[in-house]
Amino acid sequence: MSTLIRTGISLDSELLRRFDRVIHKKGYKNRSEAIRDLVRDYSVAEDVEENREVVGTLTMVYDHHQPKLAEQLIEAQHHAQDMVLAATHVHLDHHNCLEVIIMKGLSSEVRRLADRILSLRGVKHGKLVLTTQGKGL
Amino acid sequence: MSTLIRTGISLDSELLRRFDRVIHKKGYKNRSEAIRDLVRDYSVAEDVEENREVVGTLTMVYDHHQPKLAEQLIEAQHHAQDMVLAATHVHLDHHNCLEVIIMKGLSSEVRRLADRILSLRGVKHGKLVLTTQGKGL
Amino acid sequence: MSTLIRTGISLDSELLRRFDRVIHKKGYKNRSEAIRDLVRDYSVAEDVEENREVVGTLTMVYDHHQPKLAEQLIEAQHHAQDMVLAATHVHLDHHNCLEVIIMKGLSSEVRRLADRILSLRGVKHGKLVLTTQGKGL
Amino acid sequence: MSTLIRTGISLDSELLRRFDRVIHKKGYKNRSEAIRDLVRDYSVAEDVEENREVVGTLTMVYDHHQPKLAEQLIEAQHHAQDMVLAATHVHLDHHNCLEVIIMKGLSSEVRRLADRILSLRGVKHGKLVLTTQGKGL
Repeated sequence: MSTLIRTGISLDSELLRRFDRVIHKKGYKNRSEAIRDLVRDYSVAEDVEENREVVGTLTMVYDHHQPKLAEQLIEAQHHAQDMVLAATHVHLDHHNCLEVIIMKGLSSEVRRLADRILSLRGVKHGKLVLTTQGKGL
Repeated sequence: MSTLIRTGISLDSELLRRFDRVIHKKGYKNRSEAIRDLVRDYSVAEDVEENREVVGTLTMVYDHHQPKLAEQLIEAQHHAQDMVLAATHVHLDHHNCLEVIIMKGLSSEVRRLADRILSLRGVKHGKLVLTTQGKGL
Repeated sequence: MSTLIRTGISLDSELLRRFDRVIHKKGYKNRSEAIRDLVRDYSVAEDVEENREVVGTLTMVYDHHQPKLAEQLIEAQHHAQDMVLAATHVHLDHHNCLEVIIMKGLSSEVRRLADRILSLRGVKHGKLVLTTQGKGL
Repeated sequence: MSTLIRTGISLDSELLRRFDRVIHKKGYKNRSEAIRDLVRDYSVAEDVEENREVVGTLTMVYDHHQPKLAEQLIEAQHHAQDMVLAATHVHLDHHNCLEVIIMKGLSSEVRRLADRILSLRGVKHGKLVLTTQGKGL
């Protein structure tokens, strides 16, 4: 099991004042939590860069009247069956759907699957977020 | 109702060759679809910058053993009731959950809600994606 | 004058191990310096968001054989005389130049000047970096 | 020598209206030039991803009173002699300098050199931009 470790850092007083102001505005209750988040974000970026196992969520907007798109989306996800964990669908209006696909895998594989989906005709916009499987954070 | 319009662009032959190679690799079937996606992405970025109505998805990883976090997450979402459309929850392992919260609202409001959630103790990592409600794309 | 302040943060031991590994790879000599850089980066992002005074560097690649481009570049810079601090020019090959323009001003003004320059015909690619004037970091 | 090629794309009329509005605001004289810039940006991103030869500019702010920093900066640049093309220095105030270092090399090498410099004590903030050597754009 992992334990909490206390570490000290020294910062310029003016920088600290600025940082305190910003994190207060963002809603942080204390400095330690905010710095932990920065450290985690930095470590996750490294996982992505080094092509480690990550979790990815692909947010996309598409027109569900586009012929064959629904089948192609399902097919793409089934081809990568082990990678897709869940998908959520929201009806934005008569034409437009938002779908979020949650995937896991090596960061390069997740990126490739996202590229394939985003290149389908009728998918209007999309963005991929890569994060961590949570262990060791 | 909107109609398709054909527009011509002139490009350097070598740039076009490079572009064709990249979009083929990404999975695009034709140039027109790839350029449409670039144009859409550019227009969505403007919506975000100009604080228009957007759809946002917040991806976050958290430790569900963190005391009170579950209640705080629900409370934050209920406070912003009109903004939250849906949430999906995936169990990553014994400790870690991934949750995707789908919101809509002015881009500044969506950002503020995301900041509030990400600053909660126990939320380990998160990223916000802002996209469009689909109209006019 | 500002003084150094020592502050303590508590981190999970495994997260700390990961962080130490990453910062070692990036070349940091110690943890404190790496965390200071994360804190500074976070504070600078806030300056940009809040439209404070920033320093911006615009990197761009252009074809110097493009008729009238040289004059247009100089004109754009002179129009915004108070904002442009310096410009560096590198000859990449027979056709292509790289130019870096260093500007200061409110983040919205710096962005607008960069947009104007990047939209000129013959400017092939460009990216803007916004950073700080250094005070209080 | 490369030649101009004309290619047609079809877009939804409403998307086109939006796009025209945005590019007008950014300063573009016509649609073709704006789309060319999107296509170039997309192609450059691929060069970076595929670890091809790129040009990088590192913008950094540092405190020139930091002992030994000046020597370390010069040493880092000389160690990577073939990669550094030029450097520009601007005095921001009594303490703070802005320096822009222009490098070329494989994208991974340019990144590594930038990491090494940014991790030096006294370097307060920095950002790396990767762009192209201009050929084929």
